[in-house]
Amino acid sequence: MRIDLNRAAQLLCDNDNILILSHQNPDGDTLGSALALTFALRNLKKTVSVYCTDGFPENFKFMYNGEKPCIPDTSEPYIVAVDVASPVLLGDKMSDYYDKINLCIDHHSSNTDYAEYTLLESDSAATAEIILKLIDFLGAGIDKQIATCLYTGISTDTGCFRYSNTTAQSHRFAARLIECGIDFSEINRQMFEVKSVSRIAVEQYVLNSVRYFHNKKCALIYITKDILHKTGSNENELESLSSVPYQIKGVKIGITLRERENGYKISVRTAKSINAAEICAQFGGGGHLRAAGCFINGGLEEVIQKISEAADKALSENEKLKKQKSL
Amino acid sequence: MRIDLNRAAQLLCDNDNILILSHQNPDGDTLGSALALTFALRNLKKTVSVYCTDGFPENFKFMYNGEKPCIPDTSEPYIVAVDVASPVLLGDKMSDYYDKINLCIDHHSSNTDYAEYTLLESDSAATAEIILKLIDFLGAGIDKQIATCLYTGISTDTGCFRYSNTTAQSHRFAARLIECGIDFSEINRQMFEVKSVSRIAVEQYVLNSVRYFHNKKCALIYITKDILHKTGSNENELESLSSVPYQIKGVKIGITLRERENGYKISVRTAKSINAAEICAQFGGGGHLRAAGCFINGGLEEVIQKISEAADKALSENEKLKKQKSL
Repeated sequence: MRIDLNRAAQLLCDNDNILILSHQNPDGDTLGSALALTFALRNLKKTVSVYCTDGFPENFKFMYNGEKPCIPDTSEPYIVAVDVASPVLLGDKMSDYYDKINLCIDHHSSNTDYAEYTLLESDSAATAEIILKLIDFLGAGIDKQIATCLYTGISTDTGCFRYSNTTAQSHRFAARLIECGIDFSEINRQMFEVKSVSRIAVEQYVLNSVRYFHNKKCALIYITKDILHKTGSNENELESLSSVPYQIKGVKIGITLRERENGYKISVRTAKSINAAEICAQFGGGGHLRAAGCFINGGLEEVIQKISEAADKALSENEKLKKQKSL
Repeated sequence: MRIDLNRAAQLLCDNDNILILSHQNPDGDTLGSALALTFALRNLKKTVSVYCTDGFPENFKFMYNGEKPCIPDTSEPYIVAVDVASPVLLGDKMSDYYDKINLCIDHHSSNTDYAEYTLLESDSAATAEIILKLIDFLGAGIDKQIATCLYTGISTDTGCFRYSNTTAQSHRFAARLIECGIDFSEINRQMFEVKSVSRIAVEQYVLNSVRYFHNKKCALIYITKDILHKTGSNENELESLSSVPYQIKGVKIGITLRERENGYKISVRTAKSINAAEICAQFGGGGHLRAAGCFINGGLEEVIQKISEAADKALSENEKLKKQKSL
């Protein structure tokens, strides 16, 4: 059942032994939201535990501050899931809990309404924004530690206020949180600047792999298994790398290849005037107008030739169209 | 003479032919501030020109929107400098104007008070924040184009709200500007993501140059003249590259070498516990506790050996100190 902030605050007030759950592969928003709510409810003298199936990653240490993931012994805790769109995202090991969530607080419009009660605000850029409002409703107050957690949630889910999901509310809440005296520049350094030695090594290989086609209007990078092996890197560290080719000035089609069994998984990003899904459809793939994907069987050079030819064709057609329009 | 917002608004109201000047090598703040003020004053039916000695760079096209840098023929315009801390920053070709600035609007505490009147707010992260307040005082209204210019000023001067100079005011103003319907995510993409082909090529060389010392607690990169030559890159494109070595996880001393005549210009960034200025002082340099610089004569390998030995010594001493403290 969908509920509003007022009702959610009431439910939390009415219960004491509370268990708060984050989703697996925790990010800044699920963990920041869970920890902020934990600390706020404890300020109201509630007994609260917080848990994530994958533990609390070390890079978020500044948020949990010694707090340990824990499921209490009490037989029937009141269970709250934050930023968890679907129960499977709690992780396989949590399957006993899938149908036991009392309250879900989330901002994903894809939320499956699996919980007894759901507080959903899909126009919030981060679940942390909803938690901030909830803490206001609870009258729990926002101290520096809570502000650190909430700011991290908002900042990470908006790419530090860069992405189009950022709203005026995100900025207004950030203003309030900054006024709590948090070290936001250090948070942003940790979240957006610090890179592992192996990530730096992968970047090195990836930049060496850049190839240009069609008068540098198409750029392509590739990440082979060999590169991952040589650099001791893992798939998690590759996030955001696929945006590199499209970031190059003048590039209208950016292509990233990642080696899989017998071929390459391909992601294509395009400028407004070029249809990425159409390019990928030629290889049985699909997606959106400006971001799409497909899989092509074959060795590296063979795959590069196939996808670059498709990109070349798309660019030529686009240029023809533009010429016709200008005549 | 220092004046407040009210008086600055009055001065602008009292004049008609107004010339607004940006500093040389224009950034998002000086240009965004100048253009926003230009458009706002024109909304009040004033005759306004805007000029920058280096022209309006193409990457800011979305702000100037066809507007051309222009010095009017009128014999005595009222001259306003925005975000210009010292008259020499107007550029050599503008030397006739150095002592003719009627009003300066700036946020640099280093401002030399060269203008007849100076509106200075050094607690503003960007001059664009002061311009926003001034437009409010003028009652000129903030349309989408003005909001685009002001947002760009604030976003670029705060590193997209990442740096420690960001304030609650920066966020609150960003909230207001976003509500004007600007395409802030595209602005941020242009300002922070798009890289030139030559910049990508330099990054490639630079990442290939990474060397680690002292158990990977020190990382070093170098940019030789040869690299700049091979990649067709220029010094302007190297901005922010010197933060790369310190961004690597676990690194406590990050060193960047740039080739100059007969040696290398060195920049050192350090973790809290290590004194960067002390390291650089050994080579006749200096700076701050956590960011300092120096020049070392000699060839690449020779210079790398000297600076890495100094870093090694600093790290060893730091470890000794830590051990003593923990005993």
